[in-house]
Amino acid sequence: MPVQQQNIPPRAVIEHMVREQVYREMGLPLSQQAQAPNALVVNISARHCHLTPEAVEQLFGSGHELTPHKWLYQEGAYAAKESVTLIGPRSRVISNLRILGPCRDLNQVELAFTDAIALGFDIPIRMSGDVAGTPGCMLMGPNGYFQMDEGVIRAQPHVHMHPDDAAYYGVEHLDNMRMKVHGPCSVTFDDIVVRVDESFSLEAHIDTDEGNACGLKPDSFCELIK
Amino acid sequence: MPVQQQNIPPRAVIEHMVREQVYREMGLPLSQQAQAPNALVVNISARHCHLTPEAVEQLFGSGHELTPHKWLYQEGAYAAKESVTLIGPRSRVISNLRILGPCRDLNQVELAFTDAIALGFDIPIRMSGDVAGTPGCMLMGPNGYFQMDEGVIRAQPHVHMHPDDAAYYGVEHLDNMRMKVHGPCSVTFDDIVVRVDESFSLEAHIDTDEGNACGLKPDSFCELIK
Repeated sequence: MPVQQQNIPPRAVIEHMVREQVYREMGLPLSQQAQAPNALVVNISARHCHLTPEAVEQLFGSGHELTPHKWLYQEGAYAAKESVTLIGPRSRVISNLRILGPCRDLNQVELAFTDAIALGFDIPIRMSGDVAGTPGCMLMGPNGYFQMDEGVIRAQPHVHMHPDDAAYYGVEHLDNMRMKVHGPCSVTFDDIVVRVDESFSLEAHIDTDEGNACGLKPDSFCELIK
Repeated sequence: MPVQQQNIPPRAVIEHMVREQVYREMGLPLSQQAQAPNALVVNISARHCHLTPEAVEQLFGSGHELTPHKWLYQEGAYAAKESVTLIGPRSRVISNLRILGPCRDLNQVELAFTDAIALGFDIPIRMSGDVAGTPGCMLMGPNGYFQMDEGVIRAQPHVHMHPDDAAYYGVEHLDNMRMKVHGPCSVTFDDIVVRVDESFSLEAHIDTDEGNACGLKPDSFCELIK
Protein backbone atom coordinates (compact mmCIF):
# COMPACT_ATOMS: atom_id res chain seq x y z
CA MET A 1 0.00 0.00 0.00
CA PRO A 2 1.56 3.33 -1.01
CA VAL A 3 2.36 5.84 1.70
CA GLN A 4 0.01 8.83 1.45
CA GLN A 5 1.42 12.21 0.51
CA GLN A 6 2.53 14.09 3.60
CA ASN A 7 1.98 17.50 2.07
CA ILE A 8 -1.74 17.68 1.24
CA PRO A 9 -2.84 20.51 3.53
CA PRO A 10 -6.06 20.13 5.55
CA ARG A 11 -9.12 22.10 4.50
CA ALA A 12 -8.69 24.64 7.33
CA VAL A 13 -5.19 25.48 6.10
CA ILE A 14 -6.35 26.04 2.52
CA GLU A 15 -9.27 28.17 3.72
CA HIS A 16 -6.89 30.23 5.82
CA MET A 17 -4.61 30.86 2.81
CA VAL A 18 -7.53 31.78 0.55
CA ARG A 19 -9.09 34.04 3.17
CA GLU A 20 -5.85 35.92 3.69
CA GLN A 21 -5.29 36.27 -0.08
CA VAL A 22 -8.83 37.44 -0.82
CA TYR A 23 -8.82 40.06 1.94
CA ARG A 24 -5.46 41.39 0.72
CA GLU A 25 -6.52 41.57 -2.93
CA MET A 26 -9.79 43.28 -2.04
CA GLY A 27 -7.87 45.78 0.07
CA LEU A 28 -9.99 44.90 3.10
CA PRO A 29 -8.62 44.85 6.64
CA LEU A 30 -7.76 41.29 7.63
CA SER A 31 -10.39 39.63 9.84
CA GLN A 32 -9.33 38.48 13.30
CA GLN A 33 -9.13 34.90 12.03
CA ALA A 34 -7.06 35.77 8.96
CA GLN A 35 -4.57 37.64 11.16
CA ALA A 36 -3.56 34.46 12.98
CA PRO A 37 -0.16 33.18 11.86
CA ASN A 38 -1.62 29.72 11.15
CA ALA A 39 -4.96 28.03 10.54
CA LEU A 40 -6.39 26.04 13.42
CA VAL A 41 -6.65 22.40 12.41
CA VAL A 42 -8.84 20.21 14.64
CA ASN A 43 -8.46 16.46 14.31
CA ILE A 44 -10.14 13.54 16.03
CA SER A 45 -7.71 11.03 17.51
CA ALA A 46 -9.46 7.67 17.35
CA ARG A 47 -8.25 5.11 19.89
CA HIS A 48 -4.63 4.17 19.29
CA CYS A 49 -1.40 3.19 21.00
CA HIS A 50 2.22 4.27 21.15
CA LEU A 51 4.79 1.50 21.60
CA THR A 52 8.47 1.06 22.40
CA PRO A 53 10.70 -0.74 19.87
CA GLU A 54 10.83 -3.68 22.33
CA ALA A 55 7.03 -3.96 22.40
CA VAL A 56 6.90 -3.85 18.58
CA GLU A 57 9.43 -6.69 18.35
CA GLN A 58 7.58 -8.79 20.90
CA LEU A 59 4.27 -8.30 19.07
CA PHE A 60 5.47 -8.47 15.45
CA GLY A 61 8.75 -10.41 15.57
CA SER A 62 12.43 -9.83 16.17
CA GLY A 63 13.83 -6.88 14.24
CA HIS A 64 10.38 -5.69 13.11
CA GLU A 65 9.99 -1.96 12.54
CA LEU A 66 6.74 -0.02 12.05
CA THR A 67 5.72 0.80 8.47
CA PRO A 68 4.16 4.25 7.88
CA HIS A 69 0.65 3.92 6.45
CA LYS A 70 -0.60 7.51 6.66
CA TRP A 71 1.31 10.63 7.66
CA LEU A 72 -0.30 12.78 10.31
CA TYR A 73 -0.37 16.56 10.54
CA GLN A 74 2.42 16.83 13.14
CA GLU A 75 5.73 16.46 11.32
CA GLY A 76 7.18 12.95 11.40
CA ALA A 77 4.12 11.38 13.06
CA TYR A 78 2.29 8.60 11.25
CA ALA A 79 -0.37 5.92 11.60
CA ALA A 80 1.41 2.63 11.12
CA LYS A 81 0.29 -0.18 8.86
CA GLU A 82 0.49 -2.43 11.91
CA SER A 83 -2.32 -2.76 14.42
CA VAL A 84 -2.81 -4.85 17.55
CA THR A 85 -5.65 -6.44 19.47
CA LEU A 86 -6.30 -4.98 22.92
CA ILE A 87 -7.61 -7.32 25.59
CA GLY A 88 -9.36 -5.57 28.47
CA PRO A 89 -9.99 -6.53 32.09
CA ARG A 90 -13.17 -8.48 31.31
CA SER A 91 -11.58 -10.32 28.38
CA ARG A 92 -13.41 -8.04 26.02
CA VAL A 93 -11.32 -7.03 23.04
CA ILE A 94 -10.79 -4.20 20.58
CA SER A 95 -9.40 -5.46 17.29
CA ASN A 96 -7.30 -3.38 14.92
CA LEU A 97 -6.08 -0.88 17.49
CA ARG A 98 -3.93 1.43 15.39
CA ILE A 99 -0.29 1.99 16.34
CA LEU A 100 1.05 5.51 15.87
CA GLY A 101 4.71 5.90 14.98
CA PRO A 102 7.50 6.55 15.38
CA CYS A 103 8.20 4.42 18.46
CA ARG A 104 8.45 6.12 21.84
CA ASP A 105 10.23 5.27 25.07
CA LEU A 106 7.00 4.24 26.77
CA ASN A 107 3.88 2.24 25.96
CA GLN A 108 0.55 4.03 26.06
CA VAL A 109 -2.98 3.23 24.92
CA GLU A 110 -5.36 6.15 24.35
CA LEU A 111 -9.08 5.35 24.47
CA ALA A 112 -12.25 7.40 24.55
CA PHE A 113 -14.49 6.81 27.59
CA THR A 114 -17.01 5.06 25.31
CA ASP A 115 -14.28 2.54 24.37
CA ALA A 116 -13.14 2.20 27.97
CA ILE A 117 -16.65 1.57 29.29
CA ALA A 118 -17.29 -1.04 26.58
CA LEU A 119 -14.08 -2.84 27.60
CA GLY A 120 -14.66 -2.50 31.35
CA PHE A 121 -11.81 -0.07 32.05
CA ASP A 122 -11.97 2.78 34.54
CA ILE A 123 -9.34 5.07 33.04
CA PRO A 124 -8.11 8.50 34.11
CA ILE A 125 -7.70 11.62 31.99
CA ARG A 126 -3.97 12.24 31.56
CA MET A 127 -1.56 14.19 29.42
CA SER A 128 0.39 11.95 27.04
CA GLY A 129 3.37 10.36 28.81
CA ASP A 130 1.90 10.76 32.31
CA VAL A 131 0.95 7.13 32.84
CA ALA A 132 2.10 6.38 36.41
CA GLY A 133 -0.58 4.42 38.27
CA THR A 134 -2.92 4.05 35.29
CA PRO A 135 -4.52 0.70 34.35
CA GLY A 136 -2.61 -1.80 32.23
CA CYS A 137 -3.80 -4.19 29.55
CA MET A 138 -2.72 -7.05 27.31
CA LEU A 139 -1.87 -6.47 23.65
CA MET A 140 -1.85 -9.25 21.07
CA GLY A 141 0.05 -9.23 17.78
CA PRO A 142 0.88 -11.84 15.13
CA ASN A 143 4.08 -12.80 17.00
CA GLY A 144 2.72 -12.91 20.53
CA TYR A 145 1.44 -11.04 23.56
CA PHE A 146 2.80 -7.93 25.24
CA GLN A 147 1.69 -7.08 28.76
CA MET A 148 1.40 -3.41 29.69
CA ASP A 149 1.41 -2.98 33.47
CA GLU A 150 0.14 0.58 33.07
CA GLY A 151 -0.49 3.13 30.34
CA VAL A 152 -4.19 3.01 29.41
CA ILE A 153 -5.50 6.58 29.50
CA ARG A 154 -7.99 8.97 28.06
CA ALA A 155 -5.89 11.77 26.59
CA GLN A 156 -6.55 15.25 27.96
CA PRO A 157 -7.80 17.29 24.99
CA HIS A 158 -4.93 19.51 23.88
CA VAL A 159 -3.67 21.84 21.20
CA HIS A 160 -0.21 21.64 19.68
CA MET A 161 1.24 25.01 18.73
CA HIS A 162 4.39 26.71 17.54
CA PRO A 163 5.77 29.58 19.69
CA ASP A 164 4.42 32.01 17.03
CA ASP A 165 0.89 30.68 17.65
CA ALA A 166 1.39 30.89 21.43
CA ALA A 167 2.45 34.52 21.05
CA TYR A 168 -0.61 35.30 18.89
CA TYR A 169 -3.02 33.71 21.39
CA GLY A 170 -1.12 35.06 24.42
CA VAL A 171 -0.65 31.66 26.04
CA GLU A 172 2.23 29.55 27.31
CA HIS A 173 3.09 25.85 27.38
CA LEU A 174 0.60 23.97 29.60
CA ASP A 175 -1.87 26.87 29.85
CA ASN A 176 -5.56 26.04 29.49
CA MET A 177 -7.66 27.41 26.66
CA ARG A 178 -11.24 26.97 25.52
CA MET A 179 -12.14 25.78 22.05
CA LYS A 180 -15.56 26.25 20.50
CA VAL A 181 -16.68 23.95 17.70
CA HIS A 182 -19.59 25.56 15.88
CA GLY A 183 -22.43 23.65 14.20
CA PRO A 184 -25.93 22.34 14.87
CA CYS A 185 -24.84 21.07 18.30
CA SER A 186 -22.04 23.48 19.21
CA VAL A 187 -19.75 22.51 22.05
CA THR A 188 -17.14 24.54 23.90
CA PHE A 189 -14.33 22.46 25.36
CA ASP A 190 -13.29 24.40 28.44
CA ASP A 191 -10.05 22.54 29.31
CA ILE A 192 -7.84 22.36 26.24
CA VAL A 193 -4.20 22.13 27.36
CA VAL A 194 -1.67 24.09 25.30
CA ARG A 195 1.50 22.28 24.21
CA VAL A 196 4.13 24.57 22.69
CA ASP A 197 7.14 23.36 20.71
CA GLU A 198 9.23 24.71 17.81
CA SER A 199 8.37 21.54 15.88
CA PHE A 200 4.59 21.77 16.34
CA SER A 201 1.94 22.80 13.79
CA LEU A 202 -1.25 24.38 15.13
CA GLU A 203 -3.54 21.41 15.70
CA ALA A 204 -6.06 20.48 18.40
CA HIS A 205 -6.59 16.82 19.20
CA ILE A 206 -9.91 15.63 20.58
CA ASP A 207 -11.08 12.05 20.97
CA THR A 208 -13.99 10.31 19.25
CA ASP A 209 -16.44 11.08 22.10
CA GLU A 210 -15.56 14.76 21.94
CA GLY A 211 -15.59 14.80 18.14
CA ASN A 212 -18.96 13.06 18.01
CA ALA A 213 -20.45 15.19 20.81
CA CYS A 214 -19.84 18.34 18.75
CA GLY A 215 -20.43 16.62 15.40
CA LEU A 216 -17.03 17.77 14.09
CA LYS A 217 -16.87 17.77 10.29
CA PRO A 218 -14.05 18.82 7.92
CA ASP A 219 -15.73 22.19 7.42
CA SER A 220 -16.73 22.88 11.05
CA PHE A 221 -15.69 26.37 12.15
CA CYS A 222 -13.51 26.03 15.26
CA GLU A 223 -12.00 28.76 17.38
CA LEU A 224 -9.56 28.87 20.26
CA ILE A 225 -10.56 31.23 23.06
CA LYS A 226 -8.09 32.33 25.72
CA MET B 1 -37.72 -8.64 38.50
CA PRO B 2 -39.24 -6.05 40.86
CA VAL B 3 -40.01 -2.59 39.51
CA GLN B 4 -37.65 -0.06 41.08
CA GLN B 5 -39.05 2.58 43.38
CA GLN B 6 -40.07 5.63 41.40
CA ASN B 7 -39.50 8.02 44.26
CA ILE B 8 -35.79 7.77 45.08
CA PRO B 9 -34.61 11.30 44.27
CA PRO B 10 -31.36 11.79 42.28
CA ARG B 11 -28.28 13.07 44.09
CA ALA B 12 -28.66 16.60 42.65
CA VAL B 13 -32.17 16.85 44.14
CA ILE B 14 -31.02 15.78 47.60
CA GLU B 15 -28.07 18.18 47.46
CA HIS B 16 -30.42 20.98 46.47
CA MET B 17 -32.72 20.25 49.44
CA VAL B 18 -29.80 20.05 51.87
CA ARG B 19 -28.20 23.24 50.52
CA GLU B 20 -31.43 25.17 50.85
CA GLN B 21 -32.03 23.85 54.38
CA VAL B 22 -28.47 24.54 55.59
CA TYR B 23 -28.42 28.10 54.26
CA ARG B 24 -31.79 28.80 55.90
CA GLU B 25 -30.78 27.33 59.28
CA MET B 26 -27.48 29.24 59.25
CA GLY B 27 -29.36 32.44 58.43
CA LEU B 28 -27.22 32.94 55.33
CA PRO B 29 -28.55 34.46 52.13
CA LEU B 30 -29.44 31.70 49.65
CA SER B 31 -26.82 31.16 46.98
CA GLN B 32 -27.88 31.65 43.36
CA GLN B 33 -28.10 27.89 42.94
CA ALA B 34 -30.18 27.35 46.08
CA GLN B 35 -32.64 30.01 44.91
CA ALA B 36 -33.65 27.96 41.88
CA PRO B 37 -37.07 26.35 42.33
CA ASN B 38 -35.66 22.92 41.46
CA ALA B 39 -32.34 21.11 41.27
CA LEU B 40 -30.91 20.56 37.81
CA VAL B 41 -30.70 16.83 37.12
CA VAL B 42 -28.52 15.82 34.16
CA ASN B 43 -28.94 12.31 32.81
CA ILE B 44 -27.27 10.42 30.01
CA SER B 45 -29.71 8.83 27.57
CA ALA B 46 -27.99 5.72 26.27
CA ARG B 47 -29.22 4.53 22.84
CA HIS B 48 -32.85 3.46 22.96
CA CYS B 49 -36.07 3.35 20.99
CA HIS B 50 -39.70 4.42 21.33
CA LEU B 51 -42.29 2.16 19.72
CA THR B 52 -45.97 2.14 18.79
CA PRO B 53 -48.23 -0.55 20.28
CA GLU B 54 -48.36 -2.13 16.78
CA ALA B 55 -44.56 -2.41 16.61
CA VAL B 56 -44.46 -3.96 20.09
CA GLU B 57 -47.01 -6.60 19.06
CA GLN B 58 -45.18 -7.41 15.84
CA LEU B 59 -41.86 -7.78 17.70
CA PHE B 60 -43.07 -9.50 20.87
CA GLY B 61 -46.34 -11.15 19.90
CA SER B 62 -50.03 -10.35 19.63
CA GLY B 63 -51.41 -8.52 22.65
CA HIS B 64 -47.97 -7.99 24.20
CA GLU B 65 -47.54 -4.88 26.34
CA LEU B 66 -44.28 -3.36 27.63
CA THR B 67 -43.27 -4.19 31.21
CA PRO B 68 -41.70 -1.36 33.24
CA HIS B 69 -38.18 -2.32 34.40
CA LYS B 70 -36.89 0.99 35.78
CA TRP B 71 -38.77 4.23 36.25
CA LEU B 72 -37.13 7.34 34.78
CA TYR B 73 -37.04 10.84 36.23
CA GLN B 74 -39.82 12.24 34.02
CA GLU B 75 -43.13 11.13 35.48
CA GLY B 76 -44.59 8.02 33.88
CA ALA B 77 -41.55 7.30 31.70
CA TYR B 78 -39.77 3.99 32.12
CA ALA B 79 -37.12 1.72 30.65
CA ALA B 80 -38.93 -1.44 29.64
CA LYS B 81 -37.84 -4.96 30.44
CA GLU B 82 -38.06 -5.65 26.71
CA SER B 83 -35.24 -4.88 24.31
CA VAL B 84 -34.75 -5.41 20.58
CA THR B 85 -31.91 -6.03 18.16
CA LEU B 86 -31.25 -3.20 15.71
CA ILE B 87 -29.93 -4.17 12.27
CA GLY B 88 -28.17 -1.35 10.45
CA PRO B 89 -27.53 -0.65 6.77
CA ARG B 90 -24.36 -2.76 6.63
CA SER B 91 -25.98 -5.69 8.46
CA ARG B 92 -24.14 -4.69 11.59
CA VAL B 93 -26.25 -5.05 14.71
CA ILE B 94 -26.75 -3.57 18.16
CA SER B 95 -28.17 -6.13 20.56
CA ASN B 96 -30.26 -5.27 23.60
CA LEU B 97 -31.44 -1.89 22.37
CA ARG B 98 -33.58 -0.72 25.27
CA ILE B 99 -37.21 0.25 24.68
CA LEU B 100 -38.53 3.23 26.61
CA GLY B 101 -42.18 3.22 27.60
CA PRO B 102 -44.98 4.02 27.50
CA CYS B 103 -45.69 3.44 23.80
CA ARG B 104 -45.91 6.45 21.50
CA ASP B 105 -47.69 7.11 18.24
CA LEU B 106 -44.44 6.89 16.25
CA ASN B 107 -41.36 4.71 16.12
CA GLN B 108 -38.02 6.34 16.81
CA VAL B 109 -34.49 5.08 17.49
CA GLU B 110 -32.09 7.43 19.28
CA LEU B 111 -28.38 6.74 18.82
CA ALA B 112 -25.18 8.59 19.65
CA PHE B 113 -22.94 9.37 16.66
CA THR B 114 -20.44 6.76 17.94
CA ASP B 115 -23.19 4.11 17.69
CA ALA B 116 -24.33 5.39 14.29
CA ILE B 117 -20.81 5.36 12.83
CA ALA B 118 -20.21 1.84 14.14
CA LEU B 119 -23.43 0.70 12.43
CA GLY B 120 -22.84 2.63 9.21
CA PHE B 121 -25.67 5.14 9.63
CA ASP B 122 -25.47 8.79 8.64
CA ILE B 123 -28.08 10.23 10.98
CA PRO B 124 -29.28 13.79 11.51
CA ILE B 125 -29.66 15.67 14.80
CA ARG B 126 -33.38 16.09 15.46
CA MET B 127 -35.80 16.93 18.22
CA SER B 128 -37.76 13.89 19.39
CA GLY B 129 -40.74 13.26 17.09
CA ASP B 130 -39.27 15.14 14.13
CA VAL B 131 -38.35 12.09 12.07
CA ALA B 132 -39.48 12.98 8.52
CA GLY B 133 -36.83 11.99 5.99
CA THR B 134 -34.50 10.34 8.51
CA PRO B 135 -32.95 6.90 7.89
CA GLY B 136 -34.86 3.75 8.71
CA CYS B 137 -33.70 0.42 10.09
CA MET B 138 -34.81 -3.11 10.85
CA LEU B 139 -35.69 -4.18 14.39
CA MET B 140 -35.73 -7.82 15.50
CA GLY B 141 -37.64 -9.21 18.47
CA PRO B 142 -38.51 -12.70 19.71
CA ASN B 143 -41.71 -12.73 17.61
CA GLY B 144 -40.31 -11.29 14.38
CA TYR B 145 -39.03 -8.31 12.48
CA PHE B 146 -40.34 -4.78 12.33
CA GLN B 147 -39.23 -2.46 9.53
CA MET B 148 -38.92 1.23 10.30
CA ASP B 149 -38.88 3.27 7.08
CA GLU B 150 -37.61 6.29 8.98
CA GLY B 151 -36.96 7.38 12.56
CA VAL B 152 -33.26 6.84 13.35
CA ILE B 153 -31.92 10.07 14.83
CA ARG B 154 -29.42 11.58 17.18
CA ALA B 155 -31.50 13.48 19.72
CA GLN B 156 -30.80 17.19 20.02
CA PRO B 157 -29.55 17.72 23.58
CA HIS B 158 -32.40 19.27 25.54
CA VAL B 159 -33.64 20.19 28.97
CA HIS B 160 -37.11 19.39 30.26
CA MET B 161 -38.54 22.03 32.58
CA HIS B 162 -41.68 23.07 34.39
CA PRO B 163 -43.01 26.60 33.72
CA ASP B 164 -41.63 27.60 37.17
CA ASP B 165 -38.13 26.65 36.03
CA ALA B 166 -38.61 28.47 32.72
CA ALA B 167 -39.63 31.61 34.65
CA TYR B 168 -36.57 31.32 36.93
CA TYR B 169 -34.16 30.97 33.99
CA GLY B 170 -36.04 33.52 31.88
CA VAL B 171 -36.54 31.19 28.93
CA GLU B 172 -39.44 29.86 26.86
CA HIS B 173 -40.34 26.58 25.18
CA LEU B 174 -37.86 25.83 22.33
CA ASP B 175 -35.36 28.51 23.39
CA ASN B 176 -31.69 27.57 23.33
CA MET B 177 -29.58 27.55 26.51
CA ARG B 178 -26.01 26.63 27.32
CA MET B 179 -25.14 24.03 29.93
CA LYS B 180 -21.71 23.74 31.52
CA VAL B 181 -20.63 20.44 33.04
CA HIS B 182 -17.70 21.08 35.39
CA GLY B 183 -14.88 18.61 36.03
CA PRO B 184 -11.38 17.67 34.87
CA CYS B 185 -12.49 18.05 31.22
CA SER B 186 -15.26 20.63 31.46
CA VAL B 187 -17.54 21.03 28.50
CA THR B 188 -20.13 23.67 27.72
CA PHE B 189 -22.96 22.46 25.50
CA ASP B 190 -23.98 25.56 23.57
CA ASP B 191 -27.22 24.31 21.98
CA ILE B 192 -29.46 22.83 24.66
CA VAL B 193 -33.08 23.14 23.56
CA VAL B 194 -35.60 24.03 26.27
CA ARG B 195 -38.80 21.97 26.46
CA VAL B 196 -41.41 23.39 28.83
CA ASP B 197 -44.44 21.48 30.08
CA GLU B 198 -46.53 21.42 33.26
CA SER B 199 -45.71 17.73 33.62
CA PHE B 200 -41.92 18.10 33.31
CA SER B 201 -39.27 17.88 36.04
CA LEU B 202 -36.06 19.86 35.53
CA GLU B 203 -33.79 17.41 33.72
CA ALA B 204 -31.27 17.73 30.90
CA HIS B 205 -30.77 14.77 28.56
CA ILE B 206 -27.46 14.28 26.82
CA ASP B 207 -26.32 11.21 24.90
CA THR B 208 -23.42 8.86 25.69
CA ASP B 209 -20.97 10.77 23.46
CA GLU B 210 -21.81 14.02 25.20
CA GLY B 211 -21.78 12.41 28.65
CA ASN B 212 -18.43 10.76 28.00
CA ALA B 213 -16.91 13.87 26.41
CA CYS B 214 -17.52 15.82 29.63
CA GLY B 215 -16.95 12.81 31.91
CA LEU B 216 -20.35 13.29 33.59
CA LYS B 217 -20.51 11.64 37.01
CA PRO B 218 -23.33 11.58 39.58
CA ASP B 219 -21.61 14.38 41.53
CA SER B 220 -20.60 16.58 38.57
CA PHE B 221 -21.60 20.22 39.09
CA CYS B 222 -23.78 21.27 36.15
CA GLU B 223 -25.26 24.68 35.44
CA LEU B 224 -27.68 26.05 32.90
CA ILE B 225 -26.65 29.38 31.41
CA LYS B 226 -29.12 31.55 29.48
